[in-house]
Amino acid sequence: MQDFTFHNPTILDFGKDKEQQIGQHLANFGAKKVLITFGSNRIKSDGLFDKVVASLAKHSIQFVECGGIVSNPLLSKVKDGIEIARSNQVDTVLSIGGGSVLDSSKAIAAGAMYDGDVWDLFIGKSAITTALPVFDILTLAATGSEMNCGAVVTNEKTKQKYAINAPALFPKVSVVNPVLMQTVTKDYLVYSAADVIAHSIEGYFTASVQPHFQSRLVESIIKTVMETTELLIADPMNYGARSEFAWASTQALNGLIYSGTAGFSYPNHMIEHSLSALYNVPHGAGLSVVMPAWMKWYHTKNPAQFTRFAKEVFGVSTALEGIAALENWFNKIGTPTKLGQFGIAKSELPVIIENVLGNASYFGIGEIYTAEVSTEILNNAF
Amino acid sequence: MQDFTFHNPTILDFGKDKEQQIGQHLANFGAKKVLITFGSNRIKSDGLFDKVVASLAKHSIQFVECGGIVSNPLLSKVKDGIEIARSNQVDTVLSIGGGSVLDSSKAIAAGAMYDGDVWDLFIGKSAITTALPVFDILTLAATGSEMNCGAVVTNEKTKQKYAINAPALFPKVSVVNPVLMQTVTKDYLVYSAADVIAHSIEGYFTASVQPHFQSRLVESIIKTVMETTELLIADPMNYGARSEFAWASTQALNGLIYSGTAGFSYPNHMIEHSLSALYNVPHGAGLSVVMPAWMKWYHTKNPAQFTRFAKEVFGVSTALEGIAALENWFNKIGTPTKLGQFGIAKSELPVIIENVLGNASYFGIGEIYTAEVSTEILNNAF
Repeated sequence: MQDFTFHNPTILDFGKDKEQQIGQHLANFGAKKVLITFGSNRIKSDGLFDKVVASLAKHSIQFVECGGIVSNPLLSKVKDGIEIARSNQVDTVLSIGGGSVLDSSKAIAAGAMYDGDVWDLFIGKSAITTALPVFDILTLAATGSEMNCGAVVTNEKTKQKYAINAPALFPKVSVVNPVLMQTVTKDYLVYSAADVIAHSIEGYFTASVQPHFQSRLVESIIKTVMETTELLIADPMNYGARSEFAWASTQALNGLIYSGTAGFSYPNHMIEHSLSALYNVPHGAGLSVVMPAWMKWYHTKNPAQFTRFAKEVFGVSTALEGIAALENWFNKIGTPTKLGQFGIAKSELPVIIENVLGNASYFGIGEIYTAEVSTEILNNAF
Repeated sequence: MQDFTFHNPTILDFGKDKEQQIGQHLANFGAKKVLITFGSNRIKSDGLFDKVVASLAKHSIQFVECGGIVSNPLLSKVKDGIEIARSNQVDTVLSIGGGSVLDSSKAIAAGAMYDGDVWDLFIGKSAITTALPVFDILTLAATGSEMNCGAVVTNEKTKQKYAINAPALFPKVSVVNPVLMQTVTKDYLVYSAADVIAHSIEGYFTASVQPHFQSRLVESIIKTVMETTELLIADPMNYGARSEFAWASTQALNGLIYSGTAGFSYPNHMIEHSLSALYNVPHGAGLSVVMPAWMKWYHTKNPAQFTRFAKEVFGVSTALEGIAALENWFNKIGTPTKLGQFGIAKSELPVIIENVLGNASYFGIGEIYTAEVSTEILNNAF
């Protein structure tokens, strides 16, 4: 195993009605005035917002709002949030939503404490040394953002979907109530499943040091996501399945499965970020297109692990059978596997490749993902 | 899944030479004067103690010593440590050793801040609200104490092996360098394997709410421990196996596999604590005796999970075949499976049962583990 330091300070408060404790959690950390971030106004019509406000009121915590955050969240909105945070002198950010709202909230939290353009923090022009404390009530399980210190935001002007990472961005408390996820649409459920599987397999297949134990944890996550996704398609109200899906999703990107591994990269995310940045495709849907295409190109570079995947996850014998089984499963649950399903024509390829090459450099894998290789992978997706 | 709150604040610094960073870790938390706890003088002859002292000196951290802690650690020694900690006004405890040293250190850390008899904290007479900060350099992987807030100590006067648990007892930083474990004897390696398996299966078999994902994590830990134990018996210097064993051992008792489960108990530990308290048998060795005996009695109470265990871990079909396979594996690696291997005769049974009944009450499972049931289980171990 590779040397590592594991430290995940987030308090994860998991279960029914846990959002009603958010005021107490905020008070425990001394919050007095909170920026509440969210997406659509659905949280106002379904009563969640009122519950949160009532919990804050119990602890005399004031709040201001920043709503309207979209999936594949935008830099412009982050800048709006920073402005609201500053002009109202909030001391804390509370995200109510899924990964897009939470990632935006992390960027707002960092940007509010930084004396320059927040995009500097995404392009490495400046490091994140401090941030407003971030709390969240999660309404969609997929990104793992509730228990990690990363965030991804799209700069809509430059068409760059880039990331920040810093210990200051670990949420202080994440509230995960699977009941709040029961209204997630079937589309977003299956996109989320693809996202969690993508988080799991990036290191599993690409790491030069990949301990068996870590592989077993990854397989446990993938099997759980597959099992619970099918149960949730059949019955969205299945609380057991919903909660296992959420907990497995958290474990896929909270540092656990990457501890002790080395030499891994995130090529599927790298390519998908181009699709999201250019065409605003849902992140998970983009990933279910990219993964089989990438695997068909990559499997010969790590044949033993692909054979292991085929056997352990799908009970089939060969790498290609395993890849086909995953693609079939994506088709079965109804998440896209071809670019045409987004209406992206082959004539778009040069535009995508140009963006991918920028991402590949940003992800530190530009030497591997050349124009030729990226074209070969993307051609597998047409 | 059951509602839960997951929060594990320990910084785990894992890998080669990491003990040389201990001074920096202590300085990060403001330590000025440290009580170094340890077992035998081996850490002085093998150079580890000198390395630690050099690291402390770099940060001008003073220290006093409390050596001589034994396995199945004793309350009397904890009291000695508290006295040394108080009279020298240390601000921090640094454990160098395995679970026994670390558990003693936690008890010293709590006791030093408590104005009464430290045993009060074990018998629930008083709660632990504060403790000196605990750091550790782990030299034996088994107990998981490096990433949890529990500790077990034996009161040699009352023959009670009891526990404390409190968030204040999470180690601030645990240094896990698998190289330091390469000199663990073969006996203690196999006892440790049994201990980790015991931590994994208590909840797995007894929980009334046991999500599939949590079962998969448990099976991943057990398979890894079995695989790496065999590799380490063949070659104690196998760093990859040593590190996977250590990391799996940590995961077995850091809260991960018990999150979202409910209604579980620790009957194997409950019974084993009597064997350790009465006959000073190594904890892991006692567990490898108790587990098959307990399983033979318990399996009909949770047949589906025992069948699952048989299939997933050993590739056999029935609960009884799975239990036999585990017992055979214990025999193969050389950890005891019968009480006679400790020289305990059947005539001792009344003495053991009396102690077990006290433990059963302490563990909150006295209604299940009556004299009759306990006798039946222990008879399976003769």
